[in-house]
Amino acid sequence: MSRQTVLVTGANGFVGRHVARVFAREGYRVLGIGHGGWLRDEWEQWGLAAWTSADVTLATLREHTEDPSVIVHCAGGGSVAFSIENPIADFMRTVETTAQVLEYVRTVAPQCSVVYPSSASVYGAVDHLPITADQNAAPISQYGVHKLMAELFIASYARQFGTSTAIVRLFSIYGCGLQKQLLWDACRKFAAGDSIFTGTGDEVRDWLHVEDAAELLLAATENASVECPTVNGGSGEGITVREVLTHLKSSFPQRDSKLTFSGVKRTGDPSRYVADIKGSREWGWAPKRQWKQGMDEYAAWWKSSSRGL
Amino acid sequence: MSRQTVLVTGANGFVGRHVARVFAREGYRVLGIGHGGWLRDEWEQWGLAAWTSADVTLATLREHTEDPSVIVHCAGGGSVAFSIENPIADFMRTVETTAQVLEYVRTVAPQCSVVYPSSASVYGAVDHLPITADQNAAPISQYGVHKLMAELFIASYARQFGTSTAIVRLFSIYGCGLQKQLLWDACRKFAAGDSIFTGTGDEVRDWLHVEDAAELLLAATENASVECPTVNGGSGEGITVREVLTHLKSSFPQRDSKLTFSGVKRTGDPSRYVADIKGSREWGWAPKRQWKQGMDEYAAWWKSSSRGL
Repeated sequence: MSRQTVLVTGANGFVGRHVARVFAREGYRVLGIGHGGWLRDEWEQWGLAAWTSADVTLATLREHTEDPSVIVHCAGGGSVAFSIENPIADFMRTVETTAQVLEYVRTVAPQCSVVYPSSASVYGAVDHLPITADQNAAPISQYGVHKLMAELFIASYARQFGTSTAIVRLFSIYGCGLQKQLLWDACRKFAAGDSIFTGTGDEVRDWLHVEDAAELLLAATENASVECPTVNGGSGEGITVREVLTHLKSSFPQRDSKLTFSGVKRTGDPSRYVADIKGSREWGWAPKRQWKQGMDEYAAWWKSSSRGL
Repeated sequence: MSRQTVLVTGANGFVGRHVARVFAREGYRVLGIGHGGWLRDEWEQWGLAAWTSADVTLATLREHTEDPSVIVHCAGGGSVAFSIENPIADFMRTVETTAQVLEYVRTVAPQCSVVYPSSASVYGAVDHLPITADQNAAPISQYGVHKLMAELFIASYARQFGTSTAIVRLFSIYGCGLQKQLLWDACRKFAAGDSIFTGTGDEVRDWLHVEDAAELLLAATENASVECPTVNGGSGEGITVREVLTHLKSSFPQRDSKLTFSGVKRTGDPSRYVADIKGSREWGWAPKRQWKQGMDEYAAWWKSSSRGL
């Protein structure tokens, strides 16, 4: 069998980079497209054989890529806050690019599969834990709404045009390279001697290491079909924000201020999120990284990367 | 109270024209925007005070319209077949224009309500009749998927940005001016002495006269809110295709070929669709036109309009 080619959209992003690396390790020829002035040395380190800095459109896809056997569509909005400030821009990044990728596959590369890293945000407020993938999707944030629209689009192409697809709803993904969200903010605070956080600390999240997530997207590639299987990407384990921050803080021992929470719930912030990962496990995948070790590694990476900040 | 202004997008379309007329009759100043070279004489007859022939974009909305108190967003794809042949074009017509309308309201006219004529196609395959508006939406066709995306968009703006909105899921809308779908095709066949149809004839549809539909969209305007109420637009009565065609055929007495059905079910065509219209009735609206009279009127209109064809 000849070597397979994967196209990773948004390959310059946090998840995209790790996807590129995992597929390269698996023997894929990895092409990347998306935004960001990225030096060749760097993208080569992440496993890319080629990088195209461009919007993800039908035209750029036709122009710049070889015929891939799979597209992992990592491009898209990456922030709830951004989606509220810039709803149309977030819509364009998430839904429009998905339309372009699907149309490229339908019209140019019908044998190509599409794997989509979606988000647990599509679930919205949930009543029962763990969250099963067949649960009704009722997103609250613009970010989640756009992710759901992209999912609907993908499933419709599978049904109508026979596009081979798979969707993975990622929960709280973390790991080296993540420069936003709770862990990033927490490291900055701990380093500055600040230990005050919003929320109650009792919020439960399901943390998944980004390398586990990338391996799950590889498994999704092997399981993509016209049925558009949809699974959760989590560890299956719920950890409170207090537990995570208490552990992370131990990497900053020079400061011993007490961990404090405002006690005020954030509006629209779900209180408990834990993934049912039965579907992912049926693909032969399992999460490998332990969260405490992952958080230690993250704190170490943060310290090294923030030296120049 | 000063005279209110409504902007009807897609005012040149079948539903749009009747919406314009009903709002004008109610005393609204009616502005229209959309595609189609339309003579002033004609759009004035439909009740429009102004017509802008343009794509529905943030820029054209800003440029060409006065500050409306409500937008009835009739622009969008209008054919399942078209949506399958041209999925991205249909997406652009339905979802993109909705994005532009919502963004116009958010950034320029936050006091303006948005009323959306959606489609029963968002329900997809249904188990229980009548179909209630809180039923899970699982559209099958691209057309239905795009309509659902537009709905999600509208509901998200209501929730996130406080836009006053309402959604009406229209069932089988018919009336003078409809130049496609079952009734149009049937009139052509009957006039040509042909009486053979696909399907079984036992398919059940809920027919609503377009003037009833336009009056329901007027009621929606008065009931729009940040809760984004969503109701069905139907008569609440299920009629088989055989009943409808048998009745329609009586308007073509010169030809007495027997009504025949192929017996082959159309793929993806739901067999029975009847609306639960409790929500619409709670708005003080009720369907007024009887279907048999409506079909007679339609056949008469078809004959007069097809003279030159």
